[in-house]
Amino acid sequence: MIRLVFIGFGTVARGTLQILRDRAEFLRTTYGFEAMVVGVATRRGSVQAAAGLDLTALLACDSLEQYPDMSGIVRGASIPNIVESGDYDALIEVSATDLSTGEPAITSCRAALERGKGVITANKGPVALAFRELSDLARNNGAFFGYEGTVMGGTPALRLAREALAGCQITAVRGILNGTTNYMLTQMEAGQSYADALIEAQRLGYAEADPRGDVDGHDAAGKVAILANVVLGAELKLSDVETSGIRGISAADMEMARAAGERWKLIGSAVRNVKDGTIRATVRAERLPLSDPLAGVGGVSNAITYQTDLMGAITLIGAGAGGAQTGFAILSDLLEMHRDAGR
Amino acid sequence: MIRLVFIGFGTVARGTLQILRDRAEFLRTTYGFEAMVVGVATRRGSVQAAAGLDLTALLACDSLEQYPDMSGIVRGASIPNIVESGDYDALIEVSATDLSTGEPAITSCRAALERGKGVITANKGPVALAFRELSDLARNNGAFFGYEGTVMGGTPALRLAREALAGCQITAVRGILNGTTNYMLTQMEAGQSYADALIEAQRLGYAEADPRGDVDGHDAAGKVAILANVVLGAELKLSDVETSGIRGISAADMEMARAAGERWKLIGSAVRNVKDGTIRATVRAERLPLSDPLAGVGGVSNAITYQTDLMGAITLIGAGAGGAQTGFAILSDLLEMHRDAGR
Repeated sequence: MIRLVFIGFGTVARGTLQILRDRAEFLRTTYGFEAMVVGVATRRGSVQAAAGLDLTALLACDSLEQYPDMSGIVRGASIPNIVESGDYDALIEVSATDLSTGEPAITSCRAALERGKGVITANKGPVALAFRELSDLARNNGAFFGYEGTVMGGTPALRLAREALAGCQITAVRGILNGTTNYMLTQMEAGQSYADALIEAQRLGYAEADPRGDVDGHDAAGKVAILANVVLGAELKLSDVETSGIRGISAADMEMARAAGERWKLIGSAVRNVKDGTIRATVRAERLPLSDPLAGVGGVSNAITYQTDLMGAITLIGAGAGGAQTGFAILSDLLEMHRDAGR
Repeated sequence: MIRLVFIGFGTVARGTLQILRDRAEFLRTTYGFEAMVVGVATRRGSVQAAAGLDLTALLACDSLEQYPDMSGIVRGASIPNIVESGDYDALIEVSATDLSTGEPAITSCRAALERGKGVITANKGPVALAFRELSDLARNNGAFFGYEGTVMGGTPALRLAREALAGCQITAVRGILNGTTNYMLTQMEAGQSYADALIEAQRLGYAEADPRGDVDGHDAAGKVAILANVVLGAELKLSDVETSGIRGISAADMEMARAAGERWKLIGSAVRNVKDGTIRATVRAERLPLSDPLAGVGGVSNAITYQTDLMGAITLIGAGAGGAQTGFAILSDLLEMHRDAGR
């Protein structure tokens, strides 16, 4: 029985909790995996229960204070208090991403790993900004560190590179890493203006009220930093990623690409220079020929092409976000942690 | 040190041997993996050496009888003799596929697994025709059974489904599973006739002199049977796969698809009926809209789309064949066997 503490109670937390509740029987019989949620904390409050929270009651709450008063319930502990003193096996860090500081997630991950607790996160901050420190901490403390959900939601892009391509050397990574801008570009290709495509993306909940993180390429840059550090073994800072977005693309640009049999895509890439081993990382709009598998990726889908020495190009296409999808990424990390523990 | 016996000395065997030789240092330092080839056998002869064959000398041979006489070399043992009495840890079954009988590969795999030896194969026969028996044998004898190279060459399609998508339920599999026909269809789209596209594919070595296995869909059907049995847990026989090919496709058919914004692809699929759990498996030419990620897969590339409950559609695109690529699949199975042994 793995005891979990969640930091964050948003879409990803709920997606994960729902999977853990609905698949409990399947996970137990198929993988011998059993989990219990002993605490959930946000900046606005927390609820803990050593015997486990009731997931159905929890999922019925809009905020944690609505969780019913039952015996054994403890409220009001702060995030650092729970992370540093709580009795749990794995911390599920799914608070909102802050790509400027990575906080408070980095501090939580660090504290849990220092205690030898497992850490699983879908928060790009810790992995884009402090991957080396945190993975060293995990190794030195014999703790599990999982971060599959930070890139392409639940589509197992990092696991593909780490496990399924083990034995290959990956020399470059290129991808469509932001679903919002890919949706907008798909709409612009169909004739919408940039402004209308943005309004549509906001209406559908793909883009936030302040869309700069998406349209200026910052979200994609965070994922490029993660891919460069995790897959290519770089030690890039986010500021090392040369980043631009899709704001400059006009109707005339779209038309020129169409006439040439090409498509505009916002491409994040990290490429190892074979001569000196340095990694160049960029996010920028590029025109792709239709023969490129990334050109066919429309709407909010994401995709990554790994360039490998033995296998040539391998492309993975799938959902890039969503509570259930990213919840699956958390689950897949939990199952890996469970497998490792059984060795 | 894992001791290997190879059955077969063709493109895949050579691709694997070359990787084992060229990456020995990388594999040892990165994964603690060391292997030695103690025997290679074909129907025409064999060469064995308890202390290990010299891979450079072996790769310089066109046939095994050219392997130099050194002390400790034993020649002339038959395949069954080596498989049943040889001293080795894993059998690498890479003889030519026979989809009618699966032999002699099935007999070799069975004999090795019964002795508790690991078996790794890129031969579709044993996995398309005897998957259940062989995987039961492996489990009951605590032996490793790897078959990643049987579908999509080295592109890790089976590993993606088995490992990276663990925790998801896969409800359907659809793919472009035969590179030869995909190459021909790509050429026909560009205006070539079926006959010319076939000659071109034969000239380039993609199609064999007798092209029926490819153009009539039998090769793809073998892979559909493997996917249905391995990924969907079916117990399909090859004859359960409703199979047709690309022979009937005319220039007029190509033009009609083009005018409708669609593309002809030879699609292999296996779909679980949600009501009664039965699996329907087919291979047939289909017209795909350009919005389908499989529509963008050109030339000899292969691709598979897994339909999953939690993650929606996940598509993997990559090389479908080749000695180095399939050799990588063998290596990835060897690394998994090595990881398992370390648990």
